[in-house]
Amino acid sequence: MNINKNYLNLQDSYLFSTIAKKVAEYTQLNPDKKIIRLGIGDVTLPLAPTVVEAIKKAADEMGVQSTFKGYGPEQGYSFLREAIKKYYSKKSVDIAEDEIFISDGAKSDLGNILDIFSLDNTVLVPDPVYPVYVDTNIMAGRKIIYADANESNGFLPLPDENVKCDIIYICSPNNPTGAVYTKEGLKKWVDYALKNDAIILFDAAYECFIKSEELPNSIYEIEGAKNCAIEFCSFSKTAGFTGTRCGYTVVPKSLIKQGTPLNKLWLRRQTTKFNGVPYIVQKAAEAVFSELGQKQIKENIQYYSENAKIIADTMESKGIWYTGGKHSPYIWLKCPNNMSSWDFFDYLLNNIAVVGTPGAGFGKNGEGYFRLTSFGDRNKTIEAMERFKKLF
Amino acid sequence: MNINKNYLNLQDSYLFSTIAKKVAEYTQLNPDKKIIRLGIGDVTLPLAPTVVEAIKKAADEMGVQSTFKGYGPEQGYSFLREAIKKYYSKKSVDIAEDEIFISDGAKSDLGNILDIFSLDNTVLVPDPVYPVYVDTNIMAGRKIIYADANESNGFLPLPDENVKCDIIYICSPNNPTGAVYTKEGLKKWVDYALKNDAIILFDAAYECFIKSEELPNSIYEIEGAKNCAIEFCSFSKTAGFTGTRCGYTVVPKSLIKQGTPLNKLWLRRQTTKFNGVPYIVQKAAEAVFSELGQKQIKENIQYYSENAKIIADTMESKGIWYTGGKHSPYIWLKCPNNMSSWDFFDYLLNNIAVVGTPGAGFGKNGEGYFRLTSFGDRNKTIEAMERFKKLF
Repeated sequence: MNINKNYLNLQDSYLFSTIAKKVAEYTQLNPDKKIIRLGIGDVTLPLAPTVVEAIKKAADEMGVQSTFKGYGPEQGYSFLREAIKKYYSKKSVDIAEDEIFISDGAKSDLGNILDIFSLDNTVLVPDPVYPVYVDTNIMAGRKIIYADANESNGFLPLPDENVKCDIIYICSPNNPTGAVYTKEGLKKWVDYALKNDAIILFDAAYECFIKSEELPNSIYEIEGAKNCAIEFCSFSKTAGFTGTRCGYTVVPKSLIKQGTPLNKLWLRRQTTKFNGVPYIVQKAAEAVFSELGQKQIKENIQYYSENAKIIADTMESKGIWYTGGKHSPYIWLKCPNNMSSWDFFDYLLNNIAVVGTPGAGFGKNGEGYFRLTSFGDRNKTIEAMERFKKLF
Repeated sequence: MNINKNYLNLQDSYLFSTIAKKVAEYTQLNPDKKIIRLGIGDVTLPLAPTVVEAIKKAADEMGVQSTFKGYGPEQGYSFLREAIKKYYSKKSVDIAEDEIFISDGAKSDLGNILDIFSLDNTVLVPDPVYPVYVDTNIMAGRKIIYADANESNGFLPLPDENVKCDIIYICSPNNPTGAVYTKEGLKKWVDYALKNDAIILFDAAYECFIKSEELPNSIYEIEGAKNCAIEFCSFSKTAGFTGTRCGYTVVPKSLIKQGTPLNKLWLRRQTTKFNGVPYIVQKAAEAVFSELGQKQIKENIQYYSENAKIIADTMESKGIWYTGGKHSPYIWLKCPNNMSSWDFFDYLLNNIAVVGTPGAGFGKNGEGYFRLTSFGDRNKTIEAMERFKKLF
């Protein structure tokens, strides 16, 4: 029997383990120093009260025979898909219920969607990038090419007509750079995909951080996108569901490749390899869309956004080049004094006990850049930036 | 761009839709007849009270910042993996915590595990079979061969030394036949796998229905299995988790193929393409292993087992050949009077308004057989069997 040898081509990422090791060493040498972690990519605020109540109510239903729920539809309950459909209609995007698939998170579906595509497709990923896009394609043995994201294009690369690819990853607002495509920028990608018979996998996990009506929350705000794009969304950052696990994937019925509707292929994949998201979790997600739920989660998003502004304002005040921070929980800054990503990591840790994430960990174009995040505590974020201001 | 054309080789199953259509037609013609459904493969009893309480307590934790849980380990929380390790140790099976991976159900992992194997492996599945084994391999384009399960081998095929295969599916207690391998039977498969460098994917989703100490609940009760088998378990039928979604997969560290530990490959797959099971669901699963949880779920299993006995006893009393019913929620019977599966379906529906599942829907060797299940209501099961006795 043969293993999938493509797995042997995966590179182990030592990014977060190296960070942990360096922080542990520093702590041992400086036991009295108060470390502030601004590298964290996970939310820290608790679930909204109305979401907690929804889980408890659903749990009670599961404990009574007349309201007990066994196997549900693999693609999700109608009550949640309808709520998502309404959420889209507020952005003037018309999505049908059977174009929405409830998932256990964007990460799962971003990996699993590749099942329905041939192994001989060429994949285009921006660099720097969320490592999952690359690793899932290495696992399948697909050819991967990169689109350079850098200071000159504001870390928002545009299509190159001379480059031929079949599957395009776009994450906007971006992880790790926090950069957000305008409608005009996304339109260029949609046009490229339509012209080149390519598909766009659009990761919208951070869409809730967009505060401008002018910027697209969904790729389906762009004309033609329903013929070339699949959109991945998540409750993780929207509603603090990183440990509760729920998201959704939109596969338009008008998305047809080689005469086959991708919606039908994905439905077949999900009914065969997935058994749906827990009922109690889908009820939790439904509560996010209630009037009270929206009010409560917006308070949390506002909290993180204000943290982001505190960090971004600090960069402004010091004349440090950065992207993100305005419509994103991430601030992606150019390391001062031409320091490398890791040198800057050490410099911040050793001088002001602030921990961030070296940009080099996200791809070659990340070298010389650094990611700070807004998911931490307000007072700690303020203190970290006070220390930062004194240092530079 | 090219789609995965293997998907076009999948056959649509009309089994359950045809059943639904026939039942709807019958109901329209006979509005006063009380239909009893013994075809259902889903549990009907509610979650155990201690499980419901565990979910509510976990939901409260998620609503408070100090106890909130964000991203958890993709392979599951230690508290649950430790509980599973202890559960195995009661069967005298020694499994390490890092050999256990918490999943959102056996179905997901049975499909996803194929990611770590090469596409050029030959797959052996018994016929009749749970359709997911076949469909997930068709999707990947693997060669599939069948092991005949039939009356002469008690629907428990043994390995044929002349047949060469790489991946072997075994489900015991079996779905759909309810047949259970003895230790001697499983040993033959383990020996075959070791000799032929094959791997066994052992589906133990129904192990909790085994009531004899002599019969193996886990393939790891068989010597050598840790060098050739991956085991898939589920809380679905054990604790009524079909709508709550939790299971676990065991990949022994001693399972090495082409010099590569499969445990390491699977960990890489899960950390890249999965984000773990919801904290609230893992706490629910943990409660299943508490003293009270075990007592409560055993009452439910006992309820289904008694239903199974009522059905099996009816078959005995009528001299109808069957498998299952003793250590399984399924009764797989030979259609009386040499009726075909679908003729027997119509005969039962039209004469006594009892609905079951035609065996032909599970593979060619299922023709002439029929599946009844014990997941229904006690009184309805009794009434169905009273009607059955009068008919034959």
